Amino acid sequence: MLEKIDLKKKCSGKDYKEKLEAEAERLSLLQRKCKEAGIPVIIVFEGFGAAGKGTQINRLIQAMDPRGFSVYTSNRETEEERMRPFLWRYWTKIPAKGRFTVFDRSWYRRVLVDRFDKITKKEELPNAFHDILSFERQLADDGTVIIKFFLYISKEEQKKRFKNLEESKETAWKVTEADWKRNKEYDEYLKINEEMLEKTDTDYAPWVIVEAMDKNYAALKIISSVTARLEQELAKRAVPGEKKQNEKPVMKEDYKSGVLSGVDLTKTLSNKDYKKKLDELQKKMEILHSELYRLRIPVVICFEGWDAAGKGGAIKRLTSHMDPRGYQVNPTASPNDTEKAHHYLWRFWNNMPKAGHIAIFDRTWYGRVMVERIEGFCSEEEWKRAYQEINEMEEHLTNSGCVVLKLWLHIDKDEQERRFKERMENPAKQWKITDEDWRNREKWDEYEKAVDEMLVRTSTTYAPWEIVEANSKYYARVKVLETVVEAMEKAIDASKR
Amino acid sequence: MLEKIDLKKKCSGKDYKEKLEAEAERLSLLQRKCKEAGIPVIIVFEGFGAAGKGTQINRLIQAMDPRGFSVYTSNRETEEERMRPFLWRYWTKIPAKGRFTVFDRSWYRRVLVDRFDKITKKEELPNAFHDILSFERQLADDGTVIIKFFLYISKEEQKKRFKNLEESKETAWKVTEADWKRNKEYDEYLKINEEMLEKTDTDYAPWVIVEAMDKNYAALKIISSVTARLEQELAKRAVPGEKKQNEKPVMKEDYKSGVLSGVDLTKTLSNKDYKKKLDELQKKMEILHSELYRLRIPVVICFEGWDAAGKGGAIKRLTSHMDPRGYQVNPTASPNDTEKAHHYLWRFWNNMPKAGHIAIFDRTWYGRVMVERIEGFCSEEEWKRAYQEINEMEEHLTNSGCVVLKLWLHIDKDEQERRFKERMENPAKQWKITDEDWRNREKWDEYEKAVDEMLVRTSTTYAPWEIVEANSKYYARVKVLETVVEAMEKAIDASKR
Repeated sequence: MLEKIDLKKKCSGKDYKEKLEAEAERLSLLQRKCKEAGIPVIIVFEGFGAAGKGTQINRLIQAMDPRGFSVYTSNRETEEERMRPFLWRYWTKIPAKGRFTVFDRSWYRRVLVDRFDKITKKEELPNAFHDILSFERQLADDGTVIIKFFLYISKEEQKKRFKNLEESKETAWKVTEADWKRNKEYDEYLKINEEMLEKTDTDYAPWVIVEAMDKNYAALKIISSVTARLEQELAKRAVPGEKKQNEKPVMKEDYKSGVLSGVDLTKTLSNKDYKKKLDELQKKMEILHSELYRLRIPVVICFEGWDAAGKGGAIKRLTSHMDPRGYQVNPTASPNDTEKAHHYLWRFWNNMPKAGHIAIFDRTWYGRVMVERIEGFCSEEEWKRAYQEINEMEEHLTNSGCVVLKLWLHIDKDEQERRFKERMENPAKQWKITDEDWRNREKWDEYEKAVDEMLVRTSTTYAPWEIVEANSKYYARVKVLETVVEAMEKAIDASKR
Repeated sequence: MLEKIDLKKKCSGKDYKEKLEAEAERLSLLQRKCKEAGIPVIIVFEGFGAAGKGTQINRLIQAMDPRGFSVYTSNRETEEERMRPFLWRYWTKIPAKGRFTVFDRSWYRRVLVDRFDKITKKEELPNAFHDILSFERQLADDGTVIIKFFLYISKEEQKKRFKNLEESKETAWKVTEADWKRNKEYDEYLKINEEMLEKTDTDYAPWVIVEAMDKNYAALKIISSVTARLEQELAKRAVPGEKKQNEKPVMKEDYKSGVLSGVDLTKTLSNKDYKKKLDELQKKMEILHSELYRLRIPVVICFEGWDAAGKGGAIKRLTSHMDPRGYQVNPTASPNDTEKAHHYLWRFWNNMPKAGHIAIFDRTWYGRVMVERIEGFCSEEEWKRAYQEINEMEEHLTNSGCVVLKLWLHIDKDEQERRFKERMENPAKQWKITDEDWRNREKWDEYEKAVDEMLVRTSTTYAPWEIVEANSKYYARVKVLETVVEAMEKAIDASKR
């Protein structure tokens, strides 16, 4: 999920000061309320080196009454700590009712730096994740509010910051060899972090990704996430007798992490290049398909995208050279009565491919977190739960050796209008356009938010989303084929090893 | 948890018929109600070979409308099934709203027979458990009621039944070589089943252990578990707007699995034997303690038991030859204010031993599911959650290399009275007995139920309970020492390998 997040978010100095002051006042009040209500609060800071954890913790606590919080820096284990289970030092440091503990790095060391540095052994990892999840769930069940921040900067930015630190005598000591190693092997370390985020983003203790290129933006996102969450938790507890609900915190819309804003829709391809590439790729596809069949690798390819983004055309080009006995295209319409009487994933399970076969889904289970969410066909609780359910299903598929590929065909609002109109004017294409399409179009902004959240929450290491810039149909169709070909080559290579 | 369960439960023929008829009538009504309410119901049958799964399924469905349920027998995977993820065939077979599916063996094959037969590879196990838990949670979240039965018989009984089957031509084919292998290696297979039960006994899909030596008793326990659970689930859904609560089902008291009823309290030891054994064991203890220290193995020993069961005396004999620098006895009183302001496990975490040290707890975290449960010091939700929390804590400790031993000192009600009176009459012991002890005694039956549930739910493969027959103090003290010595020897052996 990290890789694709738009890191360009910023906040100007003047804007920053004003907003920060407002939030600081809120936080100060909320801290008093949490004290009165006896709520223990844990705030975790994780993220890349030089992403500014120290600075950000400092800014956050400025607003707080120092008698009410402690900051604990989680360095490498001491001799005393090493002689006990790794969670021991954190269990003994949990806040009492009404108090805050801020963790500068935390129990996540175990599955991040300590994993990278091979202090945590590979065979210890599953237990470590299991223990961390239990730990947080137990605290949350007991009423502790757990807020987790992941500070994210790019490789280049990290390098620049390390260099800046090294240039001054006062700060040079802060940059260690281990830091440089993690910068050099940034991609590998990123993967470790991605896996951690996937496995530990829970209802009761969700992660907030903080785009930390701009310190002001990061500070604002952090403090407003804290205030929003505390307000939500206080409200939850205020209603007497109401059951605790493990809701994802309401993030202020301004600070949502996103992907779509960073997509470059100007990408295009000439007719000549298109024809040449298409031909090459389709021939490759033909060979790869029979190879997959021979090696008995099942493949699931998901097509999602805006109405009129060109899903049908792309599927046609993708399958044109495939052996029809080896693949199936499953179009997804509204569920029928039998389907409605089952779990929403049931109908998709019925169409999962067997070994060596390809199942292409034209629209998918992601309807749950798009159309069903926006049209209210399922409850808020249901679509919020669906991210995890979907991730689990895709993980189960990949665990069994299946390749899962997800393509989001992206166009902008103007392009959609152009295509809608074109369809209406062309008698051969009129059937493709309905009133419903126009109605959906009115909800573009709502859909955009839902799609952004979907892409962030369900792009996993085992089943990543690929965003296909589709304003140019030629470009899109070629990128679809390229993506599929690449994934298949990878799977074939892996199975031979 | 299995090993210690009292298997002698029975039901006489006459009693059986009457009760069964009443339950059958209820079930029939409940099936209709589930249909009306659109509740899908899954009933899983697992357990030892020849424990009577087929017979019991047959008896259960007699009471039901055949148009409303299906029975699915989960044999070894077919070619078609093997080409897909192992949960595929179950996903496609989940019941629609208002229908029942009974699984004769189920997805648990993957972690039971298929594990024993090495069809499931060792490295696939963690994912298998993970996938099973997600699967059941997703269905439960969607409103499916999942009822899981584990039919349990002893090794000898199984052998007898296999022989009986083999004697008749009609049934001889039912007993396979694989069955005999599992009987021969009963203990190993038992362990596999124990681990499965530990890992998959959840709030949303709990296991019901069925003592299946007596078929009538088993049938009654099964049908009444189904009716009780369905009534509970219907009641839950009947209150509009109320949040779904993942409660453990209310089991009718008659059919609770228990341990204490099987304990033989007549065991005793002569003074001469006592002195001899005590001396030997204490000397052994001394050597083992220094060995543990050298090997840096941490040990946690928990003492629980009835008031006046002799915990103090046993701890004294246990520690008399230990090096005082290497162990600590932690008495557990009512929590003070600081302790009350933290999670209930926090104060125990503070006293967990470091590597090479022994921590002895005189009363423990198990207070949560005994005194706190019965006196209402915590909510029902809290003590019900505690079984899992405690198991997780102990698993975390054992994962880190710690030995966790739990001793329940058991006496009967008469013996307690005798000891209480003796204490009151003896001026040197009067301080030991308070009004509170007498008050607790009045709640003996309630405590007994709580203790039975605790022993069943928290006796795990990694941290088992040992029941110490303590009507004879001599016998009890020696058994405590023997148990500890044996566990230490095992840990030392394991660490050397």
